Amino acid sequence: MDDRVTEHARTLVDWSARIDAGDDVVVSVGEGAHDLGVAVAEELGKRDANMVVTYASEEMSRAYQRAHDGAFAADPEYERALYEQADSVLSLRGTRNTSASADIPEETQTAYAQAREGIREARLDTDWVSTVHPTRALAQQAGMSYQAYQEFVYDAILRDWAALAEEMDRLKQLLDDGSEVRLVKDDRTDLTMSIENRTAVNSAASVAYDSHNLPSGEVFTAPADTAGQVVFDVPMTIRGTRIRDARLVFKDGVVVDIDAEAGEDVLRAIVETDGGSECLGELGIGMNRGIDRVTDQILFDEKMGGTVHLALGRAYEACLPEGESGNQSAVHVDLITDMQTDGTRLEIDGEVIQRDGYFRWEDGFEG
Amino acid sequence: MDDRVTEHARTLVDWSARIDAGDDVVVSVGEGAHDLGVAVAEELGKRDANMVVTYASEEMSRAYQRAHDGAFAADPEYERALYEQADSVLSLRGTRNTSASADIPEETQTAYAQAREGIREARLDTDWVSTVHPTRALAQQAGMSYQAYQEFVYDAILRDWAALAEEMDRLKQLLDDGSEVRLVKDDRTDLTMSIENRTAVNSAASVAYDSHNLPSGEVFTAPADTAGQVVFDVPMTIRGTRIRDARLVFKDGVVVDIDAEAGEDVLRAIVETDGGSECLGELGIGMNRGIDRVTDQILFDEKMGGTVHLALGRAYEACLPEGESGNQSAVHVDLITDMQTDGTRLEIDGEVIQRDGYFRWEDGFEG
Repeated sequence: MDDRVTEHARTLVDWSARIDAGDDVVVSVGEGAHDLGVAVAEELGKRDANMVVTYASEEMSRAYQRAHDGAFAADPEYERALYEQADSVLSLRGTRNTSASADIPEETQTAYAQAREGIREARLDTDWVSTVHPTRALAQQAGMSYQAYQEFVYDAILRDWAALAEEMDRLKQLLDDGSEVRLVKDDRTDLTMSIENRTAVNSAASVAYDSHNLPSGEVFTAPADTAGQVVFDVPMTIRGTRIRDARLVFKDGVVVDIDAEAGEDVLRAIVETDGGSECLGELGIGMNRGIDRVTDQILFDEKMGGTVHLALGRAYEACLPEGESGNQSAVHVDLITDMQTDGTRLEIDGEVIQRDGYFRWEDGFEG
Repeated sequence: MDDRVTEHARTLVDWSARIDAGDDVVVSVGEGAHDLGVAVAEELGKRDANMVVTYASEEMSRAYQRAHDGAFAADPEYERALYEQADSVLSLRGTRNTSASADIPEETQTAYAQAREGIREARLDTDWVSTVHPTRALAQQAGMSYQAYQEFVYDAILRDWAALAEEMDRLKQLLDDGSEVRLVKDDRTDLTMSIENRTAVNSAASVAYDSHNLPSGEVFTAPADTAGQVVFDVPMTIRGTRIRDARLVFKDGVVVDIDAEAGEDVLRAIVETDGGSECLGELGIGMNRGIDRVTDQILFDEKMGGTVHLALGRAYEACLPEGESGNQSAVHVDLITDMQTDGTRLEIDGEVIQRDGYFRWEDGFEG
C-alpha cells in the first residue's frame, strides 16, 4: 500500500471525520476508490469503530435509473434507517470514467434525486466527509499523467491541517470584524462588497469546523451590495462549456453587464436563471498552498492558495445572521480570479490583507 | 455486456429471488462481481424495485478485522436496521483472490462472526439468494482457463429451472414416500439409510422452494440408522487438505471405520469433532446436468447430475418432522460419490430409481 493512501485514510478518519471508538460509520466506496477503501477500513478497525460499506457504482446507478420507469419510490425506509442511525458517512469518490452518467436523461436524474431527498438529508445530518481517491479518469480530466495527478491530489490532501486551520482563522477574524472587501487587479478588476454582519466560515476539511470536503482550505462569506467590475481569469468548464476571461459589472449588488472571451452565452444564461442568480452568494478565499495548478475540477481549483472565487447565486446559511435568509437562487456557480500577479490586492476596510497573492502574515508580503 | 451476464441477472432476479415492484433489495457486490452488479441493477430498475448496494470487499474486511482489537460491537443497530427492513438480499460473490482472508487469525474471524449473529439472522430472514460471478481467481482455483470456467459456470446457472424443479419434484415425492435408501457401487459401496418420516427438499435455486443458492439443483433429505460402507471417489479439498477415495463404514448410524487414499487424518478429525459428527446429517442427490466436471468448489460439485453426496454432521431442519431436532453437530462436511459408473444404483425401498447415473425417467436408463 502506497504510504500516501494510508496517510490520506488517517487524515480522513482523524482530522476530518473525528471518528471515535464505537462510532457507526458508513463508508461509501466509488468504483475506482478500492485502495483508499482498504486503508480506511484499517483505520476504522484500529479505532474500534463499526463499519458498513456501500458501493457507489456509477455504472450500477446508471443501469438502474435508465431501466426504471422513473416513478422512483420516495426515500425507501430500509435505506433511510441506515443513514438515520449512522454517526458518520465517509464518501470515497474516485470515478473510473467522468462520463459514466452522461447518458442518464436529465429528468430521470432529477426525479431520482428528488425521490431521495430524505435520504440525502439523513446523510447530511451525520458527520459526513467527502474525499477523492486519485484515479486515471480524474487525471485524464485534469489533463495530467496519473503519477503527476496523484502527487497533485496528495499535496492538496496531506497538509498540516491544524496549522492551516489556525492561519485561516486569522482571515476569518478579519472578515468577521470587517465591513467591506475590495478586490483590485490591473485595470480590469476593482470590486467592492459589503460583508457587514456576516460570519465567515473557516473551511478546514473537518467536521469540527463544519467543513465536509477533504481537501478543503478556504475561508468564505456571503457578500452583499457588490459594485464595480471583476475579470475571472482562471479558465473553467461550466455546463460542458469552456469559460475564459469572463467580465462581470455590478451595480447596487446586481450584474449589469457581462462579457467573456469564451462562454459568454452560458454565463448569461446562468445570470438570468432567477432573481438571485444576478447577485453574488459567496466570496471565497483559497488558502490551500498544496494546490498549485488549475485542473478544471472546482473542488480543487477554488481552494488554491492565492486565488479568490465569487459565486453567482445561493448564499450559505452559516454566513448569515440568525433569521436572515441571504441571497436565494437555484444556482451556485463559482468563478475564480488569480490574485498572484503584480499589483493585485485584497483589502478589508481599506487595509491591505493580501498583495500579489501573499497574505500580510506570509513571507513575501510587501506592506 | 456479455449476454450470459444479463441472463444470469434475469435468472437471479426472476426465478431465484422473485423480485416484485417496490421490493426493498440489498445487492451485495463482491470485489470481482462488478459486471454482474451492473446487470442486476438494470433488472431491478426494470422491475421498479428499490436498490441499496453494499460492497463485500474481502480486502476491506481483512484490513478492518486485523486492525480491530477483537472486541467487536454486537450487531450494530444501523446495519441491522437495513437488513431487518429489507425484503431481499442478493449476494453477488466473485472473489479476485480465494486466499484474500488467509491471514485473518481464526479467533478474530470467529469473534467477528459471533458478534454479527443478529445481522446474519436478519439477512437470512429476507428472501436472500447467493450467487457467484465467474472470476479469474475462481477459474484458477478450479484449474481452468477463464473462458472455460465462464462456460462451466453459465452452464450450471442458465438452466431451464422450471423444468428442472419439476423433475426434482419427482425425486422428492419418491423420497418423501420411501422408507429406506440404498446406494450400491462396485464391490466397495453398499450403504443403507432410513428416511422414514423425513421430508426431502427440492433445492431448485429459488426462494419459492426455500432454496437460496444459484446455481443449485439437488434434492436432499436427512438420513438415519446408516449401515454398510461407502467410498467417496470424487476428490475434494477440505480444510486445505486433499481427500481422495475416503471409505466410511457405518453401523447403527455411526461411523465405525475410516480410511482414505489421502487425507485420512483430516477426515478422522472431522468424525471425532462431537457426537453428531459420527453420523450422517444429509443425503443429497445432484440433479444439475449443466455441471459436468469436478472443480473442487463444493457448491458446484455437490449439485453435479449423476452424483450423490453425504454429509457428516448437522442435519437441515426442513427435512425433519415438526418438533424433531435431528442430527446436531458443529460440522457439516459433504463428501461425494460419482454414480455414473457401470452397475451403480440408487434404490428406494428396493426399487431402482437411478442406475449408472441415469434416473428411471431419463433416456439411457435401463430398468
